[in-house]
Order: sequence, then C-alpha cells, then structure tokens
Amino acid sequence: MSQTDIPGYTYGTDAVPRSPLSLDELELLKATLLMGDDDLAALRRSGQVLAGRVEEILDVWYGFVGANPHLLAAFTGPDGQPDQAYLAAVRRRFDRWILDTARAEYDQAWLDYQQEIGLRHHRSGKNRTDGARAADHIPLRYVLALLVPITTTLKPFLAEGGAAPDEVEAMHQAWVKAVLLQVILWSQPYVRDGDF
Amino acid sequence: MSQTDIPGYTYGTDAVPRSPLSLDELELLKATLLMGDDDLAALRRSGQVLAGRVEEILDVWYGFVGANPHLLAAFTGPDGQPDQAYLAAVRRRFDRWILDTARAEYDQAWLDYQQEIGLRHHRSGKNRTDGARAADHIPLRYVLALLVPITTTLKPFLAEGGAAPDEVEAMHQAWVKAVLLQVILWSQPYVRDGDF
Repeated sequence: MSQTDIPGYTYGTDAVPRSPLSLDELELLKATLLMGDDDLAALRRSGQVLAGRVEEILDVWYGFVGANPHLLAAFTGPDGQPDQAYLAAVRRRFDRWILDTARAEYDQAWLDYQQEIGLRHHRSGKNRTDGARAADHIPLRYVLALLVPITTTLKPFLAEGGAAPDEVEAMHQAWVKAVLLQVILWSQPYVRDGDF
Repeated sequence: MSQTDIPGYTYGTDAVPRSPLSLDELELLKATLLMGDDDLAALRRSGQVLAGRVEEILDVWYGFVGANPHLLAAFTGPDGQPDQAYLAAVRRRFDRWILDTARAEYDQAWLDYQQEIGLRHHRSGKNRTDGARAADHIPLRYVLALLVPITTTLKPFLAEGGAAPDEVEAMHQAWVKAVLLQVILWSQPYVRDGDF
C-alpha cells in the first residue's frame, strides 16, 4: 500500500481489522486456485498495460452496473435515484483497486484489507465508509458473479497493450484467479461461523 | 434429468428440497454472469466433445484433490485414511455432473438440485447421502476456488475434440460461467440468513 488522498482508502492502516484467515491459509487457497508465481508476474506485467487505461475501464464497469437495476440498487438512495456522490467516492477506490490487484502483493496488510472490502459490501459495513444512505447490503451472489463481467471486459484492454496472444491470455487467466481469490475473501463476513 | 441407477443421484425427484431462489432471480444471476444463449449452445456442443472423456477428466480432477491434503480432507475418514467407498460413490455422481452441466437446462428441477448439492458440501448435509464418516464440512472458500482447477484442466479435453481455437475458447468461457453459477448456488446454505 502507499499513502494516497483517496477518502476511505485505508489499506495498510490501523483502521483495517485483522483478517480471520492466516497467511498459511491464504497460501492453501492460492494453491487451490492454481495461482503460482507465473500468475503474480503476469499480474504485475498487466499493471503496466492497464495503468493508463483505468478511467476507461471504470467507464465500462460503471456502464454495466448502471445498465442493470439489480446491481445499481447497491448505489440507490432513499429517493430511488443513484447516489452520485457515493458512486464517485467508490469509483476513486475502484481505480486504485485495479492497480492494487495488478501489484499482487499478498501480505498481511493486503489480506486484512480484503476483509475490510468484504465488510463494505456486507450489511455489517455497507455505506459506513462514505456515510451513504443507499441499500444496506449487496447480495453475495452478485459479489461473486461480478468476477465474469470484470475479467471479461478487461481482456480487450489487456490485448490493446500490444502483447502477443499467449501473453494476453496469461494476464487474463491471472486476473481471473486474482479476482476470484478476492471475491472469495470478501465472502467471509457473509458466511455462518465456522463455515468459511 | 433422467432415470439413472446412480445411488444418491436425486435430480428431478421429490427427495430434493426447493431452492430458496426463484427462476426470476436465477435469470438475474445469469445476466450478472453475462451468460447468454450463446453460452448455453456452447455448453451443449461441449457435451458432444466431453461425453466419451468423462472418466479421463475425473482421473485428472481426483488426482488434483488427492495431491492436496487440504482438499482430500473432505474424503478422509476417522482412521485418517481416504474413504475409498465414499470417493467412488461421489465419483459416479461427478461423472454425471459433467454431462448435466453440459446439458445446461436451467429449469426448476435443475435449480432445486443445485441447492441439494450445496447442502451436500455443507455441514448440514455432508456425508448423509453416502452414509460416510468423513469430514463433516467442506469450507466454502475451497468450494468456490475449485472453479479454477475444474475449468482449467477441462480446456485440453475441449481442445482435443478438433474444434477451432475460437470454438474451444467459447466452450471454455461457457464452462467458467456455468461452474461459477453453480458454486454460487451451492454457497447458499453457507450464508447467513438474508445475505445470499
């Protein structure tokens, strides 16, 4: 992590709770996902390709959410309208999330921040960071399902960096693993005690 | 579903509980996964490619589980050894699962059976079907993570059917969506009331 001026971006700070998962358990989870050093290297190379394209990528993702009322509901205020300030605040952290995912530094601070991100999707922490008054919860099934639109719409951006098709595929597969790893970790607050 | 002589394969029977999800909610989940009619068609074509290879595919998957003690634990009996009868019983249904996934008939009977499969991984139903005395629960994080080894190891089998690379990719992406859809549905029994 690094110092930023992004409100609510608490990665690496004392404001983040400890993950209930240990680093050893994280390694077993990575092994289950077939995530190896080659994937971490591919993610880091992807960061160079994506760094200048973050706003365009977010335009696509926000367009998808905006076109799906059942997803836009996460940002809908008590007046039934999308909360633009909330959307904008989340977007600044989402920009940063792309770069953090590409950095692929799976240490304790990173693991802890995944727990915080999970809490911010779940009813136990939704809206808290931004003082929003939107829906108080995002259903787990949609959090998990977003793996597909996020990684599918990313692929053209990976391809436009001029890499060979095999390299684009390697970066894409690494992104699928990295996003799945994260949405799995984000699911922890949703799961019954002892079941995660 | 169809009549089979596979013990515990209750798809389409009165032994299966009703899914808590409606078919309309299933459609929203499919939309979130970008799962369209083209994916259903690709899945069905994959069934023709995979039908004769099911035992070989299961050999690979069982090899992966067997090589990972944290996964093999799901099949480990009170004596600390893998329960071979249980492994074999599950395998017969796993064979069938490949064909059912490729059939991609997302009706009420299919949806209900996903709930039953979820229960069989969770502590509320684990071991019950086969009268096994293995670990009483599979952690959700491993259930979700198995998406990657299952779909990654399937790809060479899809490619060996002689299809063009684009067609192999289409079948593979459809499998990623289909398996993610299923593991999401299987997660329901793990999730706190109202959070799924």
